Amino acid sequence: MGSHVELPLTRESVIAAHDLIKPNIHLTPVQTNTTLSNLASTPQTAEALKGTPWEGQEPARPKIKLFFKCENFQRIGAFKVRGAFHAVKRLIEREGLEEVRRKGVVTHSSGNHAQALALAAKTFDIPAHIVMPKISTPSKIAGTQAQGAIVHFSGSTSQEREAVVADVIKDTGATLVPPYDHPHIILGQGTMALELTEQASSLIASDPWLSVREGKTGLDAVIAPCGGGGMLAGNAVALHGTGVKVFAAEPEFEGGDDARRGVAAGERITTVKTLTIADGLRTPLGETNWKIVADPSYVHSLHSVTEDNIRDAMRLVLERMKCFVEPSAVVGLATILYNEDFRRVVEKEAGEEGWNIGVIFSGGNTTIEAITKIFAPVGEAKAVREQGVVGQDGKRVAENVAG
Amino acid sequence: MGSHVELPLTRESVIAAHDLIKPNIHLTPVQTNTTLSNLASTPQTAEALKGTPWEGQEPARPKIKLFFKCENFQRIGAFKVRGAFHAVKRLIEREGLEEVRRKGVVTHSSGNHAQALALAAKTFDIPAHIVMPKISTPSKIAGTQAQGAIVHFSGSTSQEREAVVADVIKDTGATLVPPYDHPHIILGQGTMALELTEQASSLIASDPWLSVREGKTGLDAVIAPCGGGGMLAGNAVALHGTGVKVFAAEPEFEGGDDARRGVAAGERITTVKTLTIADGLRTPLGETNWKIVADPSYVHSLHSVTEDNIRDAMRLVLERMKCFVEPSAVVGLATILYNEDFRRVVEKEAGEEGWNIGVIFSGGNTTIEAITKIFAPVGEAKAVREQGVVGQDGKRVAENVAG
Repeated sequence: MGSHVELPLTRESVIAAHDLIKPNIHLTPVQTNTTLSNLASTPQTAEALKGTPWEGQEPARPKIKLFFKCENFQRIGAFKVRGAFHAVKRLIEREGLEEVRRKGVVTHSSGNHAQALALAAKTFDIPAHIVMPKISTPSKIAGTQAQGAIVHFSGSTSQEREAVVADVIKDTGATLVPPYDHPHIILGQGTMALELTEQASSLIASDPWLSVREGKTGLDAVIAPCGGGGMLAGNAVALHGTGVKVFAAEPEFEGGDDARRGVAAGERITTVKTLTIADGLRTPLGETNWKIVADPSYVHSLHSVTEDNIRDAMRLVLERMKCFVEPSAVVGLATILYNEDFRRVVEKEAGEEGWNIGVIFSGGNTTIEAITKIFAPVGEAKAVREQGVVGQDGKRVAENVAG
Repeated sequence: MGSHVELPLTRESVIAAHDLIKPNIHLTPVQTNTTLSNLASTPQTAEALKGTPWEGQEPARPKIKLFFKCENFQRIGAFKVRGAFHAVKRLIEREGLEEVRRKGVVTHSSGNHAQALALAAKTFDIPAHIVMPKISTPSKIAGTQAQGAIVHFSGSTSQEREAVVADVIKDTGATLVPPYDHPHIILGQGTMALELTEQASSLIASDPWLSVREGKTGLDAVIAPCGGGGMLAGNAVALHGTGVKVFAAEPEFEGGDDARRGVAAGERITTVKTLTIADGLRTPLGETNWKIVADPSYVHSLHSVTEDNIRDAMRLVLERMKCFVEPSAVVGLATILYNEDFRRVVEKEAGEEGWNIGVIFSGGNTTIEAITKIFAPVGEAKAVREQGVVGQDGKRVAENVAG
């Protein structure tokens, strides 16, 4: 895709992208949840801060109402179809459908992007070549093939994968559609921000009590997970100049917070090797993405959370909100609930008025077995913690209420 | 509540109940799902029928579109608030708020009804006495207390529980609000059917492709889980005379299909002792409920499913629909997907035209640990079954698509 002129990274381009892909994607719902908004607006206990960098400090007292953009209900179960459809449709615009059909598209991914690209390609009868590591789980391989994609196997290192991609391009002329490091992918992912801000405003218009304060008719901020940074950069571009602040959330485990660390050091970190349970966020930030993410006029600040924070947030979303999400999807909520740096930002900048915050639930592609594994080691500790207290989250929630 | 005149079990009473409780309940969403509708409309394989009563028989070929009423998003996470609020508000109407506040309400339940009654009572500052077995899990006890209820402990048999209830009534004058065997409870639960039929019609009006056939603007049938039978009877009363057929679904494990067996034998079965994973459906059918459920002009037919059917349906709802439900919630969907008797009814009565079927997801009050337990024994068999096939459900689904 590199040989063509790409759209500039502006809010206008995101609006144009949205017009283009609207027929191909679901308008996913935005949900609110009283229990979680109350929890976000309740200071953490001294007990909860033990062992954290904020131990012994006065907990922040932010006022927050939450608006969840449920991309787990998106086609293929994740936001990735937005970027994939946008990239494929722009490619068709530039090269013509016949040409793209003749050459095909290719990507290296075993995750949501592979499924998304396969679906977008199938929609236009375009051959999709997906390069996957030989060691991928059989159900993932079969799932990608069931989408009509041609699967090519490679070794597990990025060099080995790229070699197979190069072979496919040499043999077929297929165009590479990268998972995140491309303007058309970024612009496609950014379309969710247009929907989220509009949907939140409609919800508030129909029920003013959903807003954190009287007279505030929309969002003050959006928080998005950051892996390769396509979705985060997309949201930042879409909301640039609107006054809605954009925040990033990452897993800190084994250096998974490469974007945050890179921004702090003033230089992009290009390799990351983490096995965080937020497996969609194990990738380093892309180059194009970095330019947006590192610019504080686009992304206010970046924050990270622990594996336990992710587990706790995931439990709340499943058991309280009754919403089935993958671990990567909840790092934004985990940041809001458990990261005192973020909570102080809200307390300080929003003050007594509080903020309406949009939270991106990026996807829901996990399995019962994966969840069992994620919670297995902490199961016993949790059971003990539950004895005699209100719920899994200590004393901060009183009511087991959905909605 | 027995000493007062109750409303007649008619659709008009359900409409009146709905008007009364609307401010106290959520209008839960109705969701559709292409993948699951396609699956329901695909014949089961010979392989899948092995070991079932239908082994070796020609599989049914029904045409079905599904409309899911998501009561897992209801307040307290289950439909039970409908009946509880209705019963409490009727009691206030009859006796006056002061009198009800003086005497209180009481029930014996450790499940969703206890939480629902506690919430309804708290809303009107009425004392709620909940009789629970001493062996209830600490988190359930704490959860009920957190709702402001007064918990009384009893032994585990129904005699022991009823003795404690009698004591509470003697001491306080509290009115018993039973979990299902009462007209006001039945009428309250029936309110979901009014919403479901209207919501399904709105969805079809906005997108005619959601309907199974051209020109059909609403539901043909509704299927509801049956435990004590409050919800099933409520749906049947609400839809009586409308032309929308009502079906019942039960777990067959250890005789959990007491309603079906009772109707077949012409006599209500009054004791059931099953440890089905559908733990909300372990109760025998109530007396008032029986009169409705056994009348074929109200309930077309009753069907049952195996524990494996329930697990398979639950996996689909969690992993594909991304919707967090408890096992009891999916017995209706399991019947539609796996019970050939039911599928033949649809094939025969709907023919080529097919049916739009409303499916009640009754609740979502389960935990990650409970799900882990439910799937633990079958985990390995599943993993084997997945090797080389499309998904967890064999060859019948091609696309892992939500929505």
